[in-house]
Amino acid sequence: MRTLAKEIAAAAKERPDDILELKGWVHRIRDMGGVNFVILRDRSGLVQLVFNEKPLDEAGNPLTLESAIVVQGKAALNPKAPGGAEVQVVSTGSSTEGLTILNKAHGDLPFQVNGDMTKMGLESILDNRALSVRNPKIRSIFHVQSTIIEAFSSYLRSQDFTEIKTTKLVGGGTEGGTNLFAVDYFDRKVYLAQSPQLYKQIMVASGLERVFEVAPAFRAEKHDTPRHLNEYISLDVEMGFIDSEQDLIKLERGLLAYIFEQVASKNAEDVAAWGATVPKPESTEAAPIISYEEAVKIANAEEAKAKKGGASRIFDITPEAERLLCQWSMDNYGSELIFVNEFPRKYRPFYTYPLDKGEGQPQSTMSFDALFRGLEITTGGRRQHNYEEQLEALPKFGLTPDGLSGLLTILKYGAPPHGGFAIGAERLTQKILGLASVKEASLFPRDRKRVEP
Amino acid sequence: MRTLAKEIAAAAKERPDDILELKGWVHRIRDMGGVNFVILRDRSGLVQLVFNEKPLDEAGNPLTLESAIVVQGKAALNPKAPGGAEVQVVSTGSSTEGLTILNKAHGDLPFQVNGDMTKMGLESILDNRALSVRNPKIRSIFHVQSTIIEAFSSYLRSQDFTEIKTTKLVGGGTEGGTNLFAVDYFDRKVYLAQSPQLYKQIMVASGLERVFEVAPAFRAEKHDTPRHLNEYISLDVEMGFIDSEQDLIKLERGLLAYIFEQVASKNAEDVAAWGATVPKPESTEAAPIISYEEAVKIANAEEAKAKKGGASRIFDITPEAERLLCQWSMDNYGSELIFVNEFPRKYRPFYTYPLDKGEGQPQSTMSFDALFRGLEITTGGRRQHNYEEQLEALPKFGLTPDGLSGLLTILKYGAPPHGGFAIGAERLTQKILGLASVKEASLFPRDRKRVEP
Repeated sequence: MRTLAKEIAAAAKERPDDILELKGWVHRIRDMGGVNFVILRDRSGLVQLVFNEKPLDEAGNPLTLESAIVVQGKAALNPKAPGGAEVQVVSTGSSTEGLTILNKAHGDLPFQVNGDMTKMGLESILDNRALSVRNPKIRSIFHVQSTIIEAFSSYLRSQDFTEIKTTKLVGGGTEGGTNLFAVDYFDRKVYLAQSPQLYKQIMVASGLERVFEVAPAFRAEKHDTPRHLNEYISLDVEMGFIDSEQDLIKLERGLLAYIFEQVASKNAEDVAAWGATVPKPESTEAAPIISYEEAVKIANAEEAKAKKGGASRIFDITPEAERLLCQWSMDNYGSELIFVNEFPRKYRPFYTYPLDKGEGQPQSTMSFDALFRGLEITTGGRRQHNYEEQLEALPKFGLTPDGLSGLLTILKYGAPPHGGFAIGAERLTQKILGLASVKEASLFPRDRKRVEP
Repeated sequence: MRTLAKEIAAAAKERPDDILELKGWVHRIRDMGGVNFVILRDRSGLVQLVFNEKPLDEAGNPLTLESAIVVQGKAALNPKAPGGAEVQVVSTGSSTEGLTILNKAHGDLPFQVNGDMTKMGLESILDNRALSVRNPKIRSIFHVQSTIIEAFSSYLRSQDFTEIKTTKLVGGGTEGGTNLFAVDYFDRKVYLAQSPQLYKQIMVASGLERVFEVAPAFRAEKHDTPRHLNEYISLDVEMGFIDSEQDLIKLERGLLAYIFEQVASKNAEDVAAWGATVPKPESTEAAPIISYEEAVKIANAEEAKAKKGGASRIFDITPEAERLLCQWSMDNYGSELIFVNEFPRKYRPFYTYPLDKGEGQPQSTMSFDALFRGLEITTGGRRQHNYEEQLEALPKFGLTPDGLSGLLTILKYGAPPHGGFAIGAERLTQKILGLASVKEASLFPRDRKRVEP
């Protein structure tokens, strides 16, 4: 019966005479003269092991960092030990009985797993991913990500959404065919899906009405920035029988509040390791909704304030505008989240539902973005569900019905008014923890240069 | 406030005077002279609507099948209606007030959604996927699949497993480089992952110890059979600090029992629609574990019995052997599940942990398959965790360390003894419901010929 590191403090109080078995990795070794301390790392955390002799392997060589070991010993309270307790490893005279080496790590460790990760460069962390993710602080990123995915799924299930899994091999792109990776598929070319867009619309119209999908999405964008990944985890939602993007914003408020609440309760230590704070669930309620037009004005006004005057320089929701808008939302509404809706027609894909803002006004759409802590984390909107109107709009986007038969079929045969959105899981993880680059929030990030490990 | 079809029977008893609003699709229309019945389909099921007049659209044309509509009406008990209740749609004199058409379906429906799906061919179902999945019986397949994915994830979380998401773009194959789809990735070629194998091993060794992943996997196999898909949902599990494949079989027993229990309780109607039965959870406990060698003998003996004698003709776990073994397990252990372990070295990938069966015996492995209702649904095993032994074995598989640096790094630096398995979600869905082809259990299946819709 194995005992975990996190259980040692309780065991020291409740059963100090039991011989316990622990398994894990050699995180740190300290030779203090007569006494040898080893910090053991397992899935639950760290614990101090005390050896009366220098711990050696069967061949008499010293223990190495990152070896996988099993130890037997007794739990004991020690206020000086991390966590207030430690394990006295069983020994008989001069030999350590209570140590078994399951897999000895070679001594030439190319990455300092127990080092201070703030001193490690991003490229080194990613190049050595198989080892760097052993660093407790780095690993904590993926504890949080796991909670985000779980909370996303369970919240939507509670709202009667059904989980779907759709193909990632498609004949064409949903946004018009750009930014696609081509795949040699037997004797033809297909493409990696940049979004499950059309498929989730089909599934809403199928009668499931409310669907979600957690799956990889692929974008062949040449950007190499702290906010871009060429492969990312897309948390997709689509919902039938809505009136406008307001229904979607309402859903996303509840969803984000639940995700924040779950991360705060399940990952308190992980969040603390990054010196981060999770937004209070109620701050998602406080997040304002402003139109694209207003947003551009506010971004310019905020910039003018910061730089003390000058002409408008922001003409779109640029990365700089995203930062300014989130700051403005925080200052005025106490929320690090802000929704921007009613994007101009030309900035949104062909399937976005048009919004008539009256004569003489530019063509708008029932669309929105969610910006959180200075970064766009969601794009969404109501979709066109009318067959004739969609057919009419296609040429304006340089599209033809070819390759869109799945979508056009549901529009022709009774797709209800519907819409949805997608959250980038890595971006949300990044922003919750305050990571400098989104790549840190991807286990095995893919960018223009990186395809290994 | 919308009312769902499944809530009408209760509403008829509890609030027969309320005007309710229902939304959904026109599933069936019956003109019975003076009275017109429409069967409405929503995400919860079917309900009968009663119109005193022939329901017409704004232009005075008849309602069409598969149109998306909203109706207002009162719930009323009617023993002759499906479910024992119906909705009397609001009307004033000769016009129907309580009907709004949200999206009128064209009359040339290319697929009979309300038809008997046993009379529909597989190719027609798949060609018309955007419509065929509206058929309640077909849709029920994906209700079950959603439960399988949820149950898989929640059971593993309850056992302290962490969900991971790993890249699907890899430098090489995990099984030696065959059966891979190539991707044009900027100025180089990468491949679609046929399994998260090496990545889940890295994540076990990272200290997460216990991980699972739900993700697409891609195999460029040219087979086009009722048991093959070129893209499928792989339910992957990997676990550290195990002794042998027996630990994994134990885990899978509990996991399958939980999945069966969840499907039986959440999808009783879906299962009934297929005339299927879900195995009792306890039957997974009863499932025998037999070695590969025994399995081949048993398959031959069963075949000889069925065909009344003759020489051994089965020399491997062929599809025929899978059927015979499951039948044998049912006959002798009352279980439709059987585990086959100790596969010969030559049939398992390079990373499988060897099993020494004694001098003169053929080289074996700590590996297993799970066969369920005549089909292999799982492959798994303990992995090699020793760096030197793995390096030594590579040439026997025609491999070099190139492209395996992620795996070799963790073996060199303290990977614990570990192993795992993968369940094909579509195959499990297929076998629970008794579908003729695995393609029926994939929303948008990809095979050698099919890449649309």
